[in-house]
Amino acid sequence: MSTPDFTLDPRLVKDTVPITSLKICQVLLMQDSSYPWLILVPNIPDLRDIDELNTAQRNQVMAEIDLASKALKTLFAPDKMNVANLGNIVEQLHIHIIARYKTDLAWPGPVWGKRPPVAYEAQALDALVEKLRTALTIA
Amino acid sequence: MSTPDFTLDPRLVKDTVPITSLKICQVLLMQDSSYPWLILVPNIPDLRDIDELNTAQRNQVMAEIDLASKALKTLFAPDKMNVANLGNIVEQLHIHIIARYKTDLAWPGPVWGKRPPVAYEAQALDALVEKLRTALTIA
Repeated sequence: MSTPDFTLDPRLVKDTVPITSLKICQVLLMQDSSYPWLILVPNIPDLRDIDELNTAQRNQVMAEIDLASKALKTLFAPDKMNVANLGNIVEQLHIHIIARYKTDLAWPGPVWGKRPPVAYEAQALDALVEKLRTALTIA
Repeated sequence: MSTPDFTLDPRLVKDTVPITSLKICQVLLMQDSSYPWLILVPNIPDLRDIDELNTAQRNQVMAEIDLASKALKTLFAPDKMNVANLGNIVEQLHIHIIARYKTDLAWPGPVWGKRPPVAYEAQALDALVEKLRTALTIA
């Protein structure tokens, strides 16, 4: 369902590490070690809001949100998942999937704008990317 | 798809006005005139996260998110829609659907925890509830 003329927003490119491509979404890891935080971006140009997807697209996006949520739950055993499409700063439709702990820096508030991101160290990042790729591989 | 033993969280009851019941979700209006803000709550007991829904349920929830988003867009012509399941304070699964403007009090940040809610005046509330009920009626 992707299209050849899709380009990832430059701010998303800068703030994230690519993990994998699912059937409709690119999966990115937010470069912020404060929270296990994935971002899904449907590979469709000129999208801003979820209600611009057709039924097949939105059901597939929902299936991929489900897959990503379950992967983070399995890997991180969080207290709660946050799933959100805000897009007030980066307009391109992207969905945050964030594993939250009652002990994390922003709890119980939302994570956005709370603290400057703390980048992963190189070795930890490599290991995490590998784990996430494995967890997100559809059998 | 609803079940008889579902009870709406008391904090959601306190903070919102009931609008209507769709096939799977109750639709509530947040009692905060700062933002056009609906909350969808699937009528299923003991839910916390979106990934606890089965495929049919989550596709239906997505269809109702779509309906609610389009209703707010039609009525309010916002600059952006925010759609989010956070649930860090109220654990019962509920999905925020918020019409945002570049001129609103919290822009470009998220709305949660930004300003104390400003309740609607009675007459304005009645008119808005009526408009929302009409917009959310599935033909």
